[in-house]
Amino acid sequence: MTETGTRVRETTESELDAILERAARAARPLAATSPGERAQLLRGVAETLDLAADDLVPLARSESHLPEPRLRGELARTTGQLRLFADVIEEGSWLGVCIDTADPHARPVPRPDLRRMLVPLGPVVVFAASNFPFAFSVAGGDTASALAAGCPVVLKAHPGHPELSLHTAEFVNAALLAHGAPVGTFDVVFGVATGVSAVQDPRVRAAAFTGSTAAGRALFDLAASRPDPIPFYGELGSLNPVFVTPGALSRRGPEIVREFVTSYTLGAGQFCTKPGLLFLPAEHGLSAVLAAAVAEIGAARLLNGRIVEGYEHAVQRLASRPGVHAVVPGEVTGGGPTPTLLRTTADQLLADPDPMLEECFGPASVLVEYTHPEQLRAAARAIGGNLTATIHSEPDEAEQVRPLLIDLRDRAGRVIWNGWPTGVAVSWAMHHGGPYPATTAPLHTSVGAHAIDRFLRPVCYQGMPESLLPEPLRDHNALNIPRRLNGVLTTNDVPA
Amino acid sequence: MTETGTRVRETTESELDAILERAARAARPLAATSPGERAQLLRGVAETLDLAADDLVPLARSESHLPEPRLRGELARTTGQLRLFADVIEEGSWLGVCIDTADPHARPVPRPDLRRMLVPLGPVVVFAASNFPFAFSVAGGDTASALAAGCPVVLKAHPGHPELSLHTAEFVNAALLAHGAPVGTFDVVFGVATGVSAVQDPRVRAAAFTGSTAAGRALFDLAASRPDPIPFYGELGSLNPVFVTPGALSRRGPEIVREFVTSYTLGAGQFCTKPGLLFLPAEHGLSAVLAAAVAEIGAARLLNGRIVEGYEHAVQRLASRPGVHAVVPGEVTGGGPTPTLLRTTADQLLADPDPMLEECFGPASVLVEYTHPEQLRAAARAIGGNLTATIHSEPDEAEQVRPLLIDLRDRAGRVIWNGWPTGVAVSWAMHHGGPYPATTAPLHTSVGAHAIDRFLRPVCYQGMPESLLPEPLRDHNALNIPRRLNGVLTTNDVPA
Repeated sequence: MTETGTRVRETTESELDAILERAARAARPLAATSPGERAQLLRGVAETLDLAADDLVPLARSESHLPEPRLRGELARTTGQLRLFADVIEEGSWLGVCIDTADPHARPVPRPDLRRMLVPLGPVVVFAASNFPFAFSVAGGDTASALAAGCPVVLKAHPGHPELSLHTAEFVNAALLAHGAPVGTFDVVFGVATGVSAVQDPRVRAAAFTGSTAAGRALFDLAASRPDPIPFYGELGSLNPVFVTPGALSRRGPEIVREFVTSYTLGAGQFCTKPGLLFLPAEHGLSAVLAAAVAEIGAARLLNGRIVEGYEHAVQRLASRPGVHAVVPGEVTGGGPTPTLLRTTADQLLADPDPMLEECFGPASVLVEYTHPEQLRAAARAIGGNLTATIHSEPDEAEQVRPLLIDLRDRAGRVIWNGWPTGVAVSWAMHHGGPYPATTAPLHTSVGAHAIDRFLRPVCYQGMPESLLPEPLRDHNALNIPRRLNGVLTTNDVPA
Repeated sequence: MTETGTRVRETTESELDAILERAARAARPLAATSPGERAQLLRGVAETLDLAADDLVPLARSESHLPEPRLRGELARTTGQLRLFADVIEEGSWLGVCIDTADPHARPVPRPDLRRMLVPLGPVVVFAASNFPFAFSVAGGDTASALAAGCPVVLKAHPGHPELSLHTAEFVNAALLAHGAPVGTFDVVFGVATGVSAVQDPRVRAAAFTGSTAAGRALFDLAASRPDPIPFYGELGSLNPVFVTPGALSRRGPEIVREFVTSYTLGAGQFCTKPGLLFLPAEHGLSAVLAAAVAEIGAARLLNGRIVEGYEHAVQRLASRPGVHAVVPGEVTGGGPTPTLLRTTADQLLADPDPMLEECFGPASVLVEYTHPEQLRAAARAIGGNLTATIHSEPDEAEQVRPLLIDLRDRAGRVIWNGWPTGVAVSWAMHHGGPYPATTAPLHTSVGAHAIDRFLRPVCYQGMPESLLPEPLRDHNALNIPRRLNGVLTTNDVPA
């Protein structure tokens, strides 16, 4: 029995070696393509995948148990991401061009002509996630941003959707080759041992991962302990706490808790931004509203058997703690689990944080009842690194919540006001990251335009003749991109 | 006997604890200062250090054995760095502001208002270097860039200049406090064990280091193996190879080798950018010119006894390899060693790379004679990650050297044409970094405006009311900084 449990078999060591060798050979010709040429590659992949929707969505449906409208929306988001990165690389700011012309009068020493830009790191291994079989998988954000940067991608498929991975990879590869990408620009591999080998291979220059804290940390440790450590961009666990103030409760209580139930059960609770903790003032009087809202959500099958097992274990562990009670216990049905909602107090959470501060992947969340606003700040500090943190509050409470807001700003990648963390817009301003354990690289995002920054490093050319400079650094700004010229952002040419 | 060997004693564990606690408490008020306020702090420190030159330079002279003009120049560079970062933070691009206004028509889902900016990571521990007692020490580039970012700094002093470190720290602290910095913004600590503790302390959020590969790697491993790994910006070893083409040799040979001798013996060869390998076409006929140039350089004392010991061992190890010969053997005198120049062939280097591809800290370098241009590319690949790589060539050889140039671009942080790597301009376009082992973080630089990026992480605010947004993210661009508004760089306000 293979890891994938299907006719898709695990990649052998010699196959991996050949794939990595092709990726290493592709690195230089891919890096040499212009941003415009790479934008065409990305748009070509997007178009091919849009046209393949009727082939891919049913496969995704059968392997992930996710509903068709969600999967069609996710595929649209995935091809939208590819097109966003095409726009991003044509805009040109990502190249980080700085030109300091020679200054013979500089003190303490004369300054030579210095021209800096970012260049691709080289082959990247991307570990696909289970929960977004399109958007965080074969042609997902990590792949799109690495290809946009000019890095070949070796995609370690998630065992939860092997056939979909194989087929998506075939479409990606066909589109890349049809649009002139070097052979080796992209490939897919299967198997745990394959991923472990890839992250340690000297030809691999960076890795990106979305998944569990345990697996992500193990791979991070391998990347860091190489003879030549490489950047490892892991998105691991997140609790995504939601804090509701007394003002918000009194004016919008029922609406807030109904939206909360929708948010935490979205995709059967299998979002990395699922709100796992809801802080409500004690005496909220909303238990019946909550129970009714949860009861309206039907059973939904989880992604795969391992996730079912992990989910049942985690819920069991939570529910059995002293001071933790079920608002809605949830049931295991033939069509998957119905949602679970647990209840505890802020004092209890702070006294026994361990199981409650671990991510529980699936349709369960914990209502935490608090009596003093200070408990919110103590909880925020106990919770630590998170992808998101949310406050529901009223405008006239702004000054009271400011200290909590700053506590959360120091611990989360995205801070949300009167909204919900599920649903991650793919745009310039999005940040999908956060301090450990949300990610292993707090400076970086795996969603949005800035995801490309992960796969680039600066190079400075000193005194280089115009004919040997890469086009973005030449005097004439032929690409018409923003450049910093002697400290000032401009699209002007370098004056003669 | 303490590590420092002077009356400056090692910091105790309880002193370190108190210092880290003050740094942790300073983090939030320091982060809350405006860029303009922090710019005034940095300029205040610069002014104070400039005025203290007559106190500090003699101390530096006695502890480092470096000549006074060099030390005065280095102090000027150091205060220039502080002033550059003041300008950088006032310019505002470093904040990375992106504002995507709400778009109810966005597909597949409506987009909320998203506003991203960078915020400081929190307390940073900086490990000072031995070789630049001002510019890479207490008030050096790491300190300046971390303070500019809004991070408190705990400076682990280098044992080579303890009195200077203590005094410089006193001036830095006096200036910071006089200009209103929170108590705990800066402090200095002493001792190997202190540094080891600091890098593992949960209150420390990042570390920066300049020094040997062995020490840097050990600290990197500690940072990566924490329960919550932190970014570790280590600048370790670099060989800084120089490649001379036949054309350059025939037109400028004597001039090039004389400049090479000046460069490799600068600061008694104790620069991280010291050219450690010079590739010359065999039959260069310049041995006499080289020997004469080396003979003109007098003895110079090295920084401290440990560096003397390491240097003598490394030279001995190199000189005793088969196929390695002395052009100038160097001597140990009471005033320190005179420079050593060794000679080998490219074939020998490729056959026995180990000792020759390790950095030798001090006034020694190796002349490598080659017979085919292909040997240069093979050597470039064998050498690996470097801070710099240099080509001396003539314009009519541009096309022939292009493949070598790309090999070097893929392995070095800075690629130099007809110049020398020593002397690192502090400017926007400088990149002082490179693939491992040049650094442990190839995306980052420790010199120049972009050094600030190491100490910042993004936060995205979603749907946040104007009154709770940090000033750089509000509709009115009061700071008049470049911001990306719905994908377009502008200084405009957000339209109502």
